[in-house]
Amino acid sequence: MNDFPSSVEFHEEGPREGFQMEKTHYPLQQRKILIEMLAEAGLRQIQVGSFVSPKAVPTMSDTAELFAAIDKKASTRYTSLWLNEAGFRRAVATPGVTLDGKLLVYTTDEFCLKNNNCTVQELREKQKKWIALYDNAGVALEQAYIITAFGCNYEGDVAVSKVVDAVRFLEDLCAASKRPLPHIYLADTVGWANPESIKRRIAAVRDAVPAARIGTHLHDTRGLGAANVYAALQMGVDLFDSSVAGLGGCPFAKHANSHGAGNICTEDMVFMCHELGIETGIDLEKLVEAALYAERMIGRPLAGKLMHAGIPKRM
Amino acid sequence: MNDFPSSVEFHEEGPREGFQMEKTHYPLQQRKILIEMLAEAGLRQIQVGSFVSPKAVPTMSDTAELFAAIDKKASTRYTSLWLNEAGFRRAVATPGVTLDGKLLVYTTDEFCLKNNNCTVQELREKQKKWIALYDNAGVALEQAYIITAFGCNYEGDVAVSKVVDAVRFLEDLCAASKRPLPHIYLADTVGWANPESIKRRIAAVRDAVPAARIGTHLHDTRGLGAANVYAALQMGVDLFDSSVAGLGGCPFAKHANSHGAGNICTEDMVFMCHELGIETGIDLEKLVEAALYAERMIGRPLAGKLMHAGIPKRM
Repeated sequence: MNDFPSSVEFHEEGPREGFQMEKTHYPLQQRKILIEMLAEAGLRQIQVGSFVSPKAVPTMSDTAELFAAIDKKASTRYTSLWLNEAGFRRAVATPGVTLDGKLLVYTTDEFCLKNNNCTVQELREKQKKWIALYDNAGVALEQAYIITAFGCNYEGDVAVSKVVDAVRFLEDLCAASKRPLPHIYLADTVGWANPESIKRRIAAVRDAVPAARIGTHLHDTRGLGAANVYAALQMGVDLFDSSVAGLGGCPFAKHANSHGAGNICTEDMVFMCHELGIETGIDLEKLVEAALYAERMIGRPLAGKLMHAGIPKRM
Repeated sequence: MNDFPSSVEFHEEGPREGFQMEKTHYPLQQRKILIEMLAEAGLRQIQVGSFVSPKAVPTMSDTAELFAAIDKKASTRYTSLWLNEAGFRRAVATPGVTLDGKLLVYTTDEFCLKNNNCTVQELREKQKKWIALYDNAGVALEQAYIITAFGCNYEGDVAVSKVVDAVRFLEDLCAASKRPLPHIYLADTVGWANPESIKRRIAAVRDAVPAARIGTHLHDTRGLGAANVYAALQMGVDLFDSSVAGLGGCPFAKHANSHGAGNICTEDMVFMCHELGIETGIDLEKLVEAALYAERMIGRPLAGKLMHAGIPKRM
């Protein structure tokens, strides 16, 4: 049985996911053009870049300049990623950044230590500080990511009960600070999800917190990305992080023969939605142009398929 | 609701699909090794090559020599493709070829003309001749492919009724020659299928001929391959053509920016089945080794994802 949503929202992560892991620092002018093409195609939320250590991620060092350069549309939210207080303060200080308050909850210690240098429990404690920071800056809490909600390359399968435990933590945290639950994202940065594990976790989260809106942050690490999105759509999920052209990957995800694969590909998944009769508000032809632009920028074939095959021409 | 099969059969097409469209004629010794690795991984049916015009497809000119070279396992069927009587006679004359009688039914004239130089109706007439040829050679009729069962780059969407019409033609043909219906394959060589169109056609074919076993021949042309396989699995389909490493493509399929994408990737889809608890009889580690060997042979990154990310390591 399908419980397809009537419309779906894609949050574009390509400009951040895609360029953070490249050795080349692509010209700001090209990244600006790509972001403007994405907004022009109808994407209503675009993650422009991250405010992280320029030493650790040199390609994100000019995020503030990039925000200044973009010719912004009023209908689009231009967001960013931060991982610590210094990063958040830079985001706050940068004109044009839509500040979407977010929390991160991990499920496995080892991946948490790699990415955040602290345990799952320590990171949970830090989330309380984040809520205070957001309050002080007048930033609404919009989203909470459950990282490695499916499995982890260091610790293996992640049980549904661990996901529900993370949700319960978020519920308590929000209740204590008298605020509504943010959107809850099930994240699969390292590619352990399959269509049935997607469905089980969505059902469990919905069971635990029926009012919460659920999103997914999926990577096409092992070739199941499209099947996982379809499974989420069957469950009525209407919120997806994705990357144009399939840009991206996580350099610390510990894969066998490469860094991790990119996010699910925006235009391929928009195409699937349209084929299924689900609205996205996106002009697919313009989005494919943006994907082809991204591929020319990067200078090697990217994972997106639709841009190579073309949109089917109906007679 | 899922109606997953308990086990699934993958028919490997990589050695034929993958090398027919390459400009390079890869050494016979390498193709032999790849095929032996695939059999060793547990694939029970492998399409070794095609008996087609050496002028049109030079890379398939040594198919007979390749059959002779392979160290064959008794448990594996080594099959081939032929498109005309001369090709079939070469297949019959080649020792070691498992002759699996097949019919082709098209749904749109223009694609049929491109691939077969005749109309849909003319090709249907020719199928009668094929049945006689198979009878004379003592070859069982095993499979019938409905080509472009979803859509066609020349004529657009293909209606469910056209698919049912093709099935009715096959039914009448088999009834007239007093033989059981072969397996019916829904083919999407040009990438128009989506998960719902898969389900609608499977339901319609099953409705028309409830006893027939249904298979699919899918390409990952527009990034929906995995979702389409998942949809077919949900409908209980247990027979899939696929290509190791995602090898392949159809040079005449008329795509915008490239030749067509390859078949769905064998090891990625075997991985999905195993994750869903569906048996395949395949040793996934050995299959990934074969995929990596294929990629080294071809000398450029191939579409398969699992081989790059590695099989998840459960603790």
